[in-house]
Amino acid sequence: MGDAQDPGFDELGFAKVDHDRERRQGMPEVIYGEGKSAEQIAAIAQALRSRGQIALTTRVDAAKAAAVQALLPGTGYDPISRCLFTPDPLPEPHPDTPMTLVVCAGTSDLSVAREAHLTLRAFRQRTGLLSDVGVAGIHRLLAHRGTLATADTLIVVAGMEGALPSVIAGMVHQPVIAVPTSVGYGAALNGLAALAGMLTSCASGITVVNIDNGFGAAAAAMRINRALTGYRPDS
Amino acid sequence: MGDAQDPGFDELGFAKVDHDRERRQGMPEVIYGEGKSAEQIAAIAQALRSRGQIALTTRVDAAKAAAVQALLPGTGYDPISRCLFTPDPLPEPHPDTPMTLVVCAGTSDLSVAREAHLTLRAFRQRTGLLSDVGVAGIHRLLAHRGTLATADTLIVVAGMEGALPSVIAGMVHQPVIAVPTSVGYGAALNGLAALAGMLTSCASGITVVNIDNGFGAAAAAMRINRALTGYRPDS
Amino acid sequence: MGDAQDPGFDELGFAKVDHDRERRQGMPEVIYGEGKSAEQIAAIAQALRSRGQIALTTRVDAAKAAAVQALLPGTGYDPISRCLFTPDPLPEPHPDTPMTLVVCAGTSDLSVAREAHLTLRAFRQRTGLLSDVGVAGIHRLLAHRGTLATADTLIVVAGMEGALPSVIAGMVHQPVIAVPTSVGYGAALNGLAALAGMLTSCASGITVVNIDNGFGAAAAAMRINRALTGYRPDS
Amino acid sequence: MGDAQDPGFDELGFAKVDHDRERRQGMPEVIYGEGKSAEQIAAIAQALRSRGQIALTTRVDAAKAAAVQALLPGTGYDPISRCLFTPDPLPEPHPDTPMTLVVCAGTSDLSVAREAHLTLRAFRQRTGLLSDVGVAGIHRLLAHRGTLATADTLIVVAGMEGALPSVIAGMVHQPVIAVPTSVGYGAALNGLAALAGMLTSCASGITVVNIDNGFGAAAAAMRINRALTGYRPDS
Amino acid sequence: MGDAQDPGFDELGFAKVDHDRERRQGMPEVIYGEGKSAEQIAAIAQALRSRGQIALTTRVDAAKAAAVQALLPGTGYDPISRCLFTPDPLPEPHPDTPMTLVVCAGTSDLSVAREAHLTLRAFRQRTGLLSDVGVAGIHRLLAHRGTLATADTLIVVAGMEGALPSVIAGMVHQPVIAVPTSVGYGAALNGLAALAGMLTSCASGITVVNIDNGFGAAAAAMRINRALTGYRPDS
Amino acid sequence: MGDAQDPGFDELGFAKVDHDRERRQGMPEVIYGEGKSAEQIAAIAQALRSRGQIALTTRVDAAKAAAVQALLPGTGYDPISRCLFTPDPLPEPHPDTPMTLVVCAGTSDLSVAREAHLTLRAFRQRTGLLSDVGVAGIHRLLAHRGTLATADTLIVVAGMEGALPSVIAGMVHQPVIAVPTSVGYGAALNGLAALAGMLTSCASGITVVNIDNGFGAAAAAMRINRALTGYRPDS
Amino acid sequence: MGDAQDPGFDELGFAKVDHDRERRQGMPEVIYGEGKSAEQIAAIAQALRSRGQIALTTRVDAAKAAAVQALLPGTGYDPISRCLFTPDPLPEPHPDTPMTLVVCAGTSDLSVAREAHLTLRAFRQRTGLLSDVGVAGIHRLLAHRGTLATADTLIVVAGMEGALPSVIAGMVHQPVIAVPTSVGYGAALNGLAALAGMLTSCASGITVVNIDNGFGAAAAAMRINRALTGYRPDS
Amino acid sequence: MGDAQDPGFDELGFAKVDHDRERRQGMPEVIYGEGKSAEQIAAIAQALRSRGQIALTTRVDAAKAAAVQALLPGTGYDPISRCLFTPDPLPEPHPDTPMTLVVCAGTSDLSVAREAHLTLRAFRQRTGLLSDVGVAGIHRLLAHRGTLATADTLIVVAGMEGALPSVIAGMVHQPVIAVPTSVGYGAALNGLAALAGMLTSCASGITVVNIDNGFGAAAAAMRINRALTGYRPDS
Repeated sequence: MGDAQDPGFDELGFAKVDHDRERRQGMPEVIYGEGKSAEQIAAIAQALRSRGQIALTTRVDAAKAAAVQALLPGTGYDPISRCLFTPDPLPEPHPDTPMTLVVCAGTSDLSVAREAHLTLRAFRQRTGLLSDVGVAGIHRLLAHRGTLATADTLIVVAGMEGALPSVIAGMVHQPVIAVPTSVGYGAALNGLAALAGMLTSCASGITVVNIDNGFGAAAAAMRINRALTGYRPDS
Repeated sequence: MGDAQDPGFDELGFAKVDHDRERRQGMPEVIYGEGKSAEQIAAIAQALRSRGQIALTTRVDAAKAAAVQALLPGTGYDPISRCLFTPDPLPEPHPDTPMTLVVCAGTSDLSVAREAHLTLRAFRQRTGLLSDVGVAGIHRLLAHRGTLATADTLIVVAGMEGALPSVIAGMVHQPVIAVPTSVGYGAALNGLAALAGMLTSCASGITVVNIDNGFGAAAAAMRINRALTGYRPDS
Repeated sequence: MGDAQDPGFDELGFAKVDHDRERRQGMPEVIYGEGKSAEQIAAIAQALRSRGQIALTTRVDAAKAAAVQALLPGTGYDPISRCLFTPDPLPEPHPDTPMTLVVCAGTSDLSVAREAHLTLRAFRQRTGLLSDVGVAGIHRLLAHRGTLATADTLIVVAGMEGALPSVIAGMVHQPVIAVPTSVGYGAALNGLAALAGMLTSCASGITVVNIDNGFGAAAAAMRINRALTGYRPDS
Repeated sequence: MGDAQDPGFDELGFAKVDHDRERRQGMPEVIYGEGKSAEQIAAIAQALRSRGQIALTTRVDAAKAAAVQALLPGTGYDPISRCLFTPDPLPEPHPDTPMTLVVCAGTSDLSVAREAHLTLRAFRQRTGLLSDVGVAGIHRLLAHRGTLATADTLIVVAGMEGALPSVIAGMVHQPVIAVPTSVGYGAALNGLAALAGMLTSCASGITVVNIDNGFGAAAAAMRINRALTGYRPDS
Repeated sequence: MGDAQDPGFDELGFAKVDHDRERRQGMPEVIYGEGKSAEQIAAIAQALRSRGQIALTTRVDAAKAAAVQALLPGTGYDPISRCLFTPDPLPEPHPDTPMTLVVCAGTSDLSVAREAHLTLRAFRQRTGLLSDVGVAGIHRLLAHRGTLATADTLIVVAGMEGALPSVIAGMVHQPVIAVPTSVGYGAALNGLAALAGMLTSCASGITVVNIDNGFGAAAAAMRINRALTGYRPDS
Repeated sequence: MGDAQDPGFDELGFAKVDHDRERRQGMPEVIYGEGKSAEQIAAIAQALRSRGQIALTTRVDAAKAAAVQALLPGTGYDPISRCLFTPDPLPEPHPDTPMTLVVCAGTSDLSVAREAHLTLRAFRQRTGLLSDVGVAGIHRLLAHRGTLATADTLIVVAGMEGALPSVIAGMVHQPVIAVPTSVGYGAALNGLAALAGMLTSCASGITVVNIDNGFGAAAAAMRINRALTGYRPDS
Repeated sequence: MGDAQDPGFDELGFAKVDHDRERRQGMPEVIYGEGKSAEQIAAIAQALRSRGQIALTTRVDAAKAAAVQALLPGTGYDPISRCLFTPDPLPEPHPDTPMTLVVCAGTSDLSVAREAHLTLRAFRQRTGLLSDVGVAGIHRLLAHRGTLATADTLIVVAGMEGALPSVIAGMVHQPVIAVPTSVGYGAALNGLAALAGMLTSCASGITVVNIDNGFGAAAAAMRINRALTGYRPDS
Repeated sequence: MGDAQDPGFDELGFAKVDHDRERRQGMPEVIYGEGKSAEQIAAIAQALRSRGQIALTTRVDAAKAAAVQALLPGTGYDPISRCLFTPDPLPEPHPDTPMTLVVCAGTSDLSVAREAHLTLRAFRQRTGLLSDVGVAGIHRLLAHRGTLATADTLIVVAGMEGALPSVIAGMVHQPVIAVPTSVGYGAALNGLAALAGMLTSCASGITVVNIDNGFGAAAAAMRINRALTGYRPDS
């Protein structure tokens, strides 16, 4: 957890950047962009970069993104997932990483699905994205059985009633990480209906992350990937 | 709405039995058993019987049912759906009524499914019951496509995440009445998760009734059946 | 569900347009406009048009509507219901379709009522609209008993306490599809009070769709209309 | 608020009985029975009796009621409303008090309606009770227009969607105090649906009390009755 | 309820103006401004004016108010309560009406308190307004005991924990109508905390209206005032 | 945090008793009785006793209490607060500890108030209990101003709307720890109304603990008492 | 998904036992005991046994368990986790399976933790159980760092505020499956507080299952274990 | 509570400024800025200043702040905490006041933490601020054990799952006042998850204030500080 010279974090005054996290958890700290100023984001990203780590920031709107890009050249922005990343372009995936497939129910869920997808890409994992296979037209999903079989882990993203993970988990044996989205209105309750649905799925062994938390699903997949590749932290 | 001699209801003091309802709506009043004493239920049932109507009471536990049966001979009781009905046996269905198929996701949902089924039987409708075809093993449902096609209207009963109506409604063109059940725990929120899921289904044209309300689904199917058979009330 | 040449959907990359839906369900896919860009909406609408289907998009604000109209000429926009439709004008109703009457409680509910009305019009159904007959002045409703009797199916739209479907369902024998709206404030809870009220109605046989879901009510009426006209999908 | 000799309450150790309340508010303290032992209830009731006040206790189950009756002879119990009262029989109403009519939607609401009715009786007010006039058969209510007109104040009790106060308040000009009940299940949410419905009524000028709070409605009617009879406290 | 010539409402197409309401309920229809266009408001107000009734509209923002004022000269606007009223100035109160005192806990509650106050003024009732006497400095309230005693009815407006009605109702014998406001944040839950607090008050006989519903409280006070002045509708 | 010989806890297999807590926090571990068997409680209590600490268990019903008393002689039980304590009788308070006054609104809140009171007694603090001074009869509270002034810290317990802490905190300068109780029904929401009310109090500087958590309030008072008596843990 | 001879499920009338699930998902169907009769449980268990699969039933109380044991000899019951299993004793774990460590915060969480533990045992996985290491005495957790390091996957069970998964996930790199429990009261909201806390954890990559769903966590771990051991279903 | 000349408040018409509060509670009234106009804020601030008290206003956005500053020269504004204060600069802390340490979990919580910090500064208390020590990297917190030990009282600010107070309260013996923040999304429910987590903490003796209520935490600390310094109000 750090030695005398290194407490395990960089002190920026307003923040203590946990640069030890990659060693402990096999994945660097990712910046939560909401409520932080462009200056704060750039400073934390710079601290991560100076340690040789990739800097990824989630939940950044376009205006703030532009401000960060001005402060930290070489930073890219994906407007659909609202993520910032440095360097741009990101390095290629390691060819021997496990395959994580991100599946989403509808076009409106793409923003969250891409946050998961981009996070995996930022950490050099192999990943794919399968879109618009919601259960209201189940032949679209059944037509992609083969694609599902190629994945080591599945991240399944759905809003409204959130039924897609139940159907997929009933079809496959792999880990299924479900991501509810806030897509929908009225009784969708900003994603709580999908969240509750996924938690109470009649299909067994689904795990769930927070509403719209594409990043969290990717981080959970990373933990599985580390297990699959035999990662052990330096002690 | 009744004439001078007949105000359209029987005055029992504690209750005003709406015997005009069958004329107005094509279906007699059904007794809501919760919170009523055995004596009250028997008195209302007797008033309906004296008008030549079938008496059906929902939500009656076994002890109260026995008390009513003692007060009103010729009354039957179905312990799974917790319904009382007079006369016992119920008359046979009219052979030319539309077919309403009740489908339920899991064995634990049977109580609600049978309340719907029995209500339809009490009003002499043709009806069937298909059980345990939840989405976690979707091959069970796909194997029954033919059965679904035989129905004029579908009542789909499911608890937990309540995904079954979405999948069925995506497969068929008939009316689909969804019934959430209180089966489940934790985030199932006593059926609210299934309810919210059905209301926000990505499949279009599903309608929903209250949690555990098998009777209400049957009553809604009755309205459709009346339309299908060209019912018009006497004016 | 499609043959070797036709998987049953058009692959647009970001979307899989379910053009088989009209065959399966008697009604084409309708585009959910929220969270989709003008470009995405226009592309999906174009795909539907190229299959000879009517393109209807719900939940589109005025600015996005104008952008779609620029991309897809011949598209109309109804600002009250916030719906886009192609072609404009819509074709006339089939004269032999059942009659669906949309009833709304107050002037503030008109937006939702018109979404239902326009959806039915888009699919060439006969339909009418009766406005401002809320229960606080029940003589207004009683004065329209005759209008109610002309309908095959009723869609009843109400916000606040959502009592109108209870009163109407107690008066008529036809199917009643209730639509709660988000009209109201405070304890109206963005429509949840009306939704809960409709689900727990003391009048039997009401079915309910999601808050503000005029489209969903129309789609449910379409399912009933198909039953009334003896629709069977090609196998 | 009491003088040097009298602080305005009797000190029982575990309770401070507010015997001054009748002077301040025109109505004595009523005992909330839930969570109190039979001994506590009897002691407080005795303290009120010794000041010449009527002792009324709400929310007492049958076993506890019998225990109190054993401790305090001359105490009556109404099992439907679960109220204890001393003396038994209660004195007759003052003939010149205003008339408060308690109206309830269904037989299952009778328990709450009678709590209101009995409270008014205990304080010697004129009162009546009209039962089972729910909106699902509105002809039952319309047949009692004349009865409604005889009341100075109306207490309207309803569970499920709680629509009855909206309809009545639209018909009359008198004060309408609405009481939601916990009758119903599922989306009735133990009375919260009825409560929210009454609070958001489209009829203006309805006021609402807590779920199942028949006593509170009677107490509110008492405040109006005091105004109607020109009550002024001794200063 | 109207005769052959007069159905009791004016048909405007989008609305049915209930001009019979004043006869039935002793108070004309008031326009709910939210979700209505300036044109709709002006048309309804004009219909009421042409029947000789005062036109009051609640929940109108400044821009819409100006548009209505341009369409209907002689219309006033109160920016604090966000109410429109015609004519401007309003006629003086009838000198013999009962006195309704509006009390509010904090300065932030003034908007709601003034909506109640202005509504009473619009219907020519005597009324007063006492501000900023919240329970955190109870000496401020105790110093106004005399003012409370002058009222026939009290409307008590409070946000946050909504404790003021409990304390006042414990001090006085008059009717107390409690209005929760949405003032507060976090656990105030947009006024639900104050609403729940008022409904569960330990002081007896408080009645409650919807969150921020100053108008509704005034309408309830009007019902009491009608009772106090012996109002009876023409039959 | 313990040395090589002592990890700071006793290993019981099913539990790790944190006997170091008194050193760290100035107060020993207290046993949460719910969901533990009599055998588990007795074993943990025995482990604490063997370290010379007082054993206090909260939330124990009468049957389980008797079973523990049989297993661990010298254990007392208070049926009102449902607490077990060893030894019985408890040692006298230290005479120089600060004074914590527990105030409760109604007789029904006594159970929670006594849990706080007994916890303080178990840890030898000076404490008093003032009961039934709810805000509906505020003269009862004003009559006890002098008692309030004698306290160093106040624990204020109230159910229903939970207004008492607001009024008291407005009168005094001392720390006020508010405890909502689950007393009440309907909109009281099992104590959530009181909880929300206390959190949003207009009186400043109130802190709040969980519903019915008399123990937690006492533990918080203990932290203040330690500060007042200059406690410092051994390092 | 089954061939002509075998539809993939056994038809029991009331149930369709999905015996194909082990092939598809690497884990047989587990029986959800709530709402099923002893006869139904025994029949399903018998059907699974006749296919050579282990029969595990969750959520069975002691009385029902005894009834099943009488019907199906060789069935064991664990009263803490309330699980039935056949055969008894269960076969030994496969020695080469991954290690899943179940960690629980408090003694009261043991019931859920053991459900997870027993499920893994039933499917012959290596597993361990570490109890009572809640964050209120963090030295207890820090003392077990070495134990955490031995696991391939961690299941972390906690009630109340559910903070334990956040702390553990910050310390380790392995997959962390969090299980909220219903332990606690008041604002714990029957486990919803812990659930929400785990979903919004500031530690990244935690996944969550339903409240008290020890079985579901084990099933999710099984999916990871299958990935770690290179499982592929027969096609 | 004031004498004949001084009622204890200044009457501004729209507000009654409670200038007696400092005497009663040892801390002047603080202005709640939300929902008040710049003119109202300036007038109340001026009234406080004229009594020699410091004027602090919370929850003021930048535009309104500038307007107040124009009306009341010598007023400072802190944009992070959104607080106004007069005079600017604030006077130095009294050197002998207790030390209150404000600790916050993440950079996004700084706004709330600074509101607490600034409030303490405004009332001349010694205070410190420790930022970004959330539990996901617990070595950051453990590295600051010494800092925690220097405080007399701790204010702990955290959003998301709000676990930080549990961990800190398990480490220290001082009073811990927990402040949940609205940082987070989805299941964070605008801070309700953190609030519920803090209320149900497994660490004993934590007290909680409203979401984002940095001011309230500081006011609670002031009450403790007054106790620590032996404050007694003038009688």
